[in-house]
Amino acid sequence: MTDFASTRAAFHLPEGVTYLDGNSLGPMPHAAKARVAAMMQDEWSEMLITGWNKAGWYTQPRRVGDRIARLIGAGPGQVVMGDTLSIKVFQAVSAARALRPDRRVILSDNGNFPSDLYVAEGLARAVGAELRVVAPEEVEAAIDDHLAVLMITEVDYRTGRRHDMRSLTARAHDAGALTVWDLAHSAGAVDVDLTGADADFAVGCTYKYLNGGPGAPAFIWVHPRHGDAAQPILQGWMGHKSPFAFDLGYAPAPGIERMRVGTPPVIAMTALDAALDVWDDVNLSDLRARSVELTEAFIARVEAACPDLTLHSPRDPERRGSQVGFRHPQGYAVMQALIANGVIGDFRAPDVLRFGFAPLYNDLDDVERAVDTLSRILRDESWNNEQFHKQAAVT
Amino acid sequence: MTDFASTRAAFHLPEGVTYLDGNSLGPMPHAAKARVAAMMQDEWSEMLITGWNKAGWYTQPRRVGDRIARLIGAGPGQVVMGDTLSIKVFQAVSAARALRPDRRVILSDNGNFPSDLYVAEGLARAVGAELRVVAPEEVEAAIDDHLAVLMITEVDYRTGRRHDMRSLTARAHDAGALTVWDLAHSAGAVDVDLTGADADFAVGCTYKYLNGGPGAPAFIWVHPRHGDAAQPILQGWMGHKSPFAFDLGYAPAPGIERMRVGTPPVIAMTALDAALDVWDDVNLSDLRARSVELTEAFIARVEAACPDLTLHSPRDPERRGSQVGFRHPQGYAVMQALIANGVIGDFRAPDVLRFGFAPLYNDLDDVERAVDTLSRILRDESWNNEQFHKQAAVT
Repeated sequence: MTDFASTRAAFHLPEGVTYLDGNSLGPMPHAAKARVAAMMQDEWSEMLITGWNKAGWYTQPRRVGDRIARLIGAGPGQVVMGDTLSIKVFQAVSAARALRPDRRVILSDNGNFPSDLYVAEGLARAVGAELRVVAPEEVEAAIDDHLAVLMITEVDYRTGRRHDMRSLTARAHDAGALTVWDLAHSAGAVDVDLTGADADFAVGCTYKYLNGGPGAPAFIWVHPRHGDAAQPILQGWMGHKSPFAFDLGYAPAPGIERMRVGTPPVIAMTALDAALDVWDDVNLSDLRARSVELTEAFIARVEAACPDLTLHSPRDPERRGSQVGFRHPQGYAVMQALIANGVIGDFRAPDVLRFGFAPLYNDLDDVERAVDTLSRILRDESWNNEQFHKQAAVT
Repeated sequence: MTDFASTRAAFHLPEGVTYLDGNSLGPMPHAAKARVAAMMQDEWSEMLITGWNKAGWYTQPRRVGDRIARLIGAGPGQVVMGDTLSIKVFQAVSAARALRPDRRVILSDNGNFPSDLYVAEGLARAVGAELRVVAPEEVEAAIDDHLAVLMITEVDYRTGRRHDMRSLTARAHDAGALTVWDLAHSAGAVDVDLTGADADFAVGCTYKYLNGGPGAPAFIWVHPRHGDAAQPILQGWMGHKSPFAFDLGYAPAPGIERMRVGTPPVIAMTALDAALDVWDDVNLSDLRARSVELTEAFIARVEAACPDLTLHSPRDPERRGSQVGFRHPQGYAVMQALIANGVIGDFRAPDVLRFGFAPLYNDLDDVERAVDTLSRILRDESWNNEQFHKQAAVT
């Protein structure tokens, strides 16, 4: 049984704060700060350029990738780190499309994170493909024989709706298409099983439930059956089969290594590596059970205490990730009032209050405190205050 | 007059090491370690998600970009940070090509860093363009009316040869083409003047002469005349005109902001920001004079003391960046012996010993010690030792 009191103790959580925004930025694990300081002093400053070998910086994107592989149902040697999620989406979708050169359509849904849609739109324009965007519930019916790539974010960033990876992948395969799964709101939050679902490509970020720090590097997974066939448009030297031969022509490295592009961000990757220590003794079934317990408790208590809020997430936990959205006409102001009262969630336009429950450090006391504060704010309308209506640049 | 003793004191340089590889990875400025620790503790761990506004993480890529702008002859608001150099090359070349849609040719030279060629090759294949690669001395003659983009690295990573940015840009413009300059070995090393040269796009990395740390974020500059017209294939949410409106369709931000893609790497960018403090009192003419002084002294002394070595860099300092290459048939082993004796340069296949001189912290004592050690190793053939012939994964 996973000891969630002990995982919670691994994080720095500010005094007086109930943090329900780990689905946007995870808190700092104590180990991250010490590890980065040690890397900067003992590796960068002392080893200088020799750190690429001596400290293993060069292989770090693969080693860290292997640690994430376990959390998403992938095997060792199948995941590599680097860049940002948007770049990894571009790589995965472009490589998948290139494996279906006679087909034009990239299909996604309008619950996908906008950046994925922007990336696919830019790619489609460049390579003469076509991006089709339908409602989440229409995805399955929209899969047909023109489809090259199904590009889906498993857990919706606003509603927490969870697509059925296994059945949609099977449906896409039946139609002769490939799948790209964005795990931004899944990795570290739900029991992802890429191998079991027989998916083709997957990508994700590591600054949410994996707690790698703001702007931590992204990951990409390619099913081994495509490993030596997939060729992304973005071909950089770190993905070359012999980067240090400095050949003038590109020849891709075998397997997942070709998904590397440029020089990896060692300082950021070190923070992430330290953050992944917390996962060493975490069982994914326990994680999922804990997540369901927390979100179910939150929904039940909010609905009992806050009649002005409307559930925006699926009620069935099987169809939901580890976050819960509620709608309120003054959602932005309500969230600002909540934050001012020490409960940090976030707001997503136009009217969604979003609460993420990270099983590693959130507990039932957090649920209790959040609901108490929320119901108080709604009851006395303390959100109805000019200061809470000013839109900040980033929420 | 720039005080180079004081800039040297800003760096941690390991005891007993003569570091001539700052053109590969700059050493750690003392300030970087403290600043990163403070960012992790006071911002990430205490502010959590609110750090995007409160600590200014969201605008950091522009603020840091402005600091770099001064070092490359660009104006404020023209440079933005993010991703890696290979990604920025892709963005710049794809955006430049899109501004010349009726032309197919991307021209580069075989002294360019291979990753730039790989990136351009992948892009060309995807969009139906053609990459032409000629010898560096043939670039000017190869510019013709078919040319869409001239993609050149100003300072050659092996020879240190410096292209004439002003005249090549003028020649490209006369032919109706646009230019993309890679400043990897220029920024912080020579007196770059993008505005004076009337260049169109420029990109660079920050872990070499700018000392941002291993894998520090890259930069991209776009001349303001293209700012609102340039549209890269890679379109991510941070480059959207209203990222937090979460529109389903992409609409580019005005100017350089559209060159942002995904979430910026805040920890890494903070190290870089601290590293840029060292530049505050550095005058670029002084920097260039110091660089010429160091490389001229090194060449003269090596040629006097090491007859087995052949100069691989241009002899005229006007045609050279801040590094010097020498060839030796056993170059790899010689470099390993040098490193074992505390002089760190690096080796580039097939036979080049490469020495970078960073005016900020290298001095004439470094030149002296390096030449003494090199001549001793060559004289007593101590490189002729099995241990120095083993090829490491990264050199």
